[in-house]
Amino acid sequence: MGLLESTLGRIDPPDADARAEARARLARLTMPHWALGRLMDLAEELAGMTRSLRPPVDRKTVVTMAGDHGVAVEGVSLYPQAVTQQMVWNFVRGGAGINALARLVGARVVVVDMGVAGDLADLARGGRIVSCRVGPGTRNLAEGPAMSREQALRCVESGIAVSLSQGATTDLFGTGDMGIGNTTPSAAMVAAFTGLPPEEVTGRGTGIGDDLWRRKVAVIRKALEVNRPDARDPLDVLAKLGGFEIGGIAGLILGAASQRKPILVDGFISTAGALVARRLSPPAAGYLIAAHRSAEAGHGAALRDLGKQPLLDLGLRLGEGTGSALAMHLVEAAARILTEVATFEEAGVAEAER
Amino acid sequence: MGLLESTLGRIDPPDADARAEARARLARLTMPHWALGRLMDLAEELAGMTRSLRPPVDRKTVVTMAGDHGVAVEGVSLYPQAVTQQMVWNFVRGGAGINALARLVGARVVVVDMGVAGDLADLARGGRIVSCRVGPGTRNLAEGPAMSREQALRCVESGIAVSLSQGATTDLFGTGDMGIGNTTPSAAMVAAFTGLPPEEVTGRGTGIGDDLWRRKVAVIRKALEVNRPDARDPLDVLAKLGGFEIGGIAGLILGAASQRKPILVDGFISTAGALVARRLSPPAAGYLIAAHRSAEAGHGAALRDLGKQPLLDLGLRLGEGTGSALAMHLVEAAARILTEVATFEEAGVAEAER
Repeated sequence: MGLLESTLGRIDPPDADARAEARARLARLTMPHWALGRLMDLAEELAGMTRSLRPPVDRKTVVTMAGDHGVAVEGVSLYPQAVTQQMVWNFVRGGAGINALARLVGARVVVVDMGVAGDLADLARGGRIVSCRVGPGTRNLAEGPAMSREQALRCVESGIAVSLSQGATTDLFGTGDMGIGNTTPSAAMVAAFTGLPPEEVTGRGTGIGDDLWRRKVAVIRKALEVNRPDARDPLDVLAKLGGFEIGGIAGLILGAASQRKPILVDGFISTAGALVARRLSPPAAGYLIAAHRSAEAGHGAALRDLGKQPLLDLGLRLGEGTGSALAMHLVEAAARILTEVATFEEAGVAEAER
Repeated sequence: MGLLESTLGRIDPPDADARAEARARLARLTMPHWALGRLMDLAEELAGMTRSLRPPVDRKTVVTMAGDHGVAVEGVSLYPQAVTQQMVWNFVRGGAGINALARLVGARVVVVDMGVAGDLADLARGGRIVSCRVGPGTRNLAEGPAMSREQALRCVESGIAVSLSQGATTDLFGTGDMGIGNTTPSAAMVAAFTGLPPEEVTGRGTGIGDDLWRRKVAVIRKALEVNRPDARDPLDVLAKLGGFEIGGIAGLILGAASQRKPILVDGFISTAGALVARRLSPPAAGYLIAAHRSAEAGHGAALRDLGKQPLLDLGLRLGEGTGSALAMHLVEAAARILTEVATFEEAGVAEAER
């Protein structure tokens, strides 16, 4: 049995009894009923995921999956492909957005080379990044499959392996991505999974203008026509339209769910990965927490498909795991509410009169 | 010259040059232009408030102002008035929602007795709370002014004094409130300031049902008719419709602004205080950061009047400063983005091509 199959077999839904116990305690806290709103919903969910009334969330890891994209030759991004590799160096040196936000919340950043177009062997040998290279970037999805089905499976299993190896020292995961051009495969995947027309799920990526946006929509439409992905077969969609880092994110989610650990889903690219994970394992969705609503146009549709309400809505569109890192604070806050706030009985406070 | 007058004279708007310098650096960071959205807006604002490209935000204080309300006799809350005093004890013992969330973000909680109906002298003598008692709760605003104009001034000046005394050890302030019944005066004040009808700005408070909500609206309508507050005179509105803790919050904001320190405004009650502060000093609004959008019905209208977009929207309706404490993490995140993220030049990353 392969790693994917065995992992899928180990994913159970969150525990209803632990949720009910948490809900009962939250209803007795010294505050009007459920007065901390979404944070109390989240506290209840954390109890269900972790089977604990003291959900562990201290040890936090953002996994930033990097990969390049053949579709970059279509000119769908403002930035040259070399930026993917340059940003991996920036991550390793601690100078990127994700580094600043992860440091603030006390999270480790684990950078994974899922298939960057460029030589990162020195960083991998030095242990500064994890190497799970599937290839030097995908092929151009406008002309055929972005990768083979075997490569798609390898991406997902690599993500699972990273999750399992980090799991020993991680209570709370966050997803992240880096890959010039990767809003294009993500939008194509969201279009394939949801059936929405490309123009409704295609956004501005790094900040393209109207002309480039129209080109990007045309590329995605062509990719759907050329590849005819089977929306009921998530590995087919990933292979034909996806990216190595997107498959890695799907695997990371499945691995976290198999270890009963909560995992924050970052923005648009991560949500594309989450759609693959949920289709491979519906109960895995019970361990997902949507970190934020991205400014990227298709993210709302992708979140609706995932069935998740995001915690934050700050107009972020960076990726890297920055939304995950920010939302980790809210996850910790939810856990603290469950464990540190006194009940009416404990505090000797009078309750509602009617 | 009184403390209010001298404080108003010391409030300047945030500095446009510091904002421009921050904006220039933020535009050079290794990410697509302004890809961290609202956090980058906030980073720019922090630079303007603090006149620094390294805005200090480490030392954080939530000031939770407590007071009681004569209008409680109208039965507008689910909880007995004694809960205000009981919750002050809960704050001091560290068992309330604000304690858990403040600990998480490393903020001190300073509890101020602005006028609780009950004896908190032991706590004040022991230095566990700050005593600025204006009286043992306000009078019933449905039958006449909640307090005298002199008391209203005293509330505001007490808030300024607390701000000045905490300022030596505080970089970032947050407002908070505790007072059974205090959504009623807050809604009355918002109705008076905005001219909106009471039913549009009156919410469910601690969780009242339809019958109590109608009674609450009627109480607020009567308060407006009986008192005829002058919307152009913020101390008149505060005196006739307000609460001691609401005046204290207004003063806290003015004091923070006079020290050029950012201050997070918590939920509905704090925003009512902020409306007083902004009317006393329009430039003070430049130091305000709206922490969150409360679930309380009138908060949206109050925020629009204040001209602020909230950072969080999590269905919170607790008060105490819980929204301020949560949002402090986002303020720190904004400051870190400005100070810790490398520019394209610093990191050797290629820039946008077109």
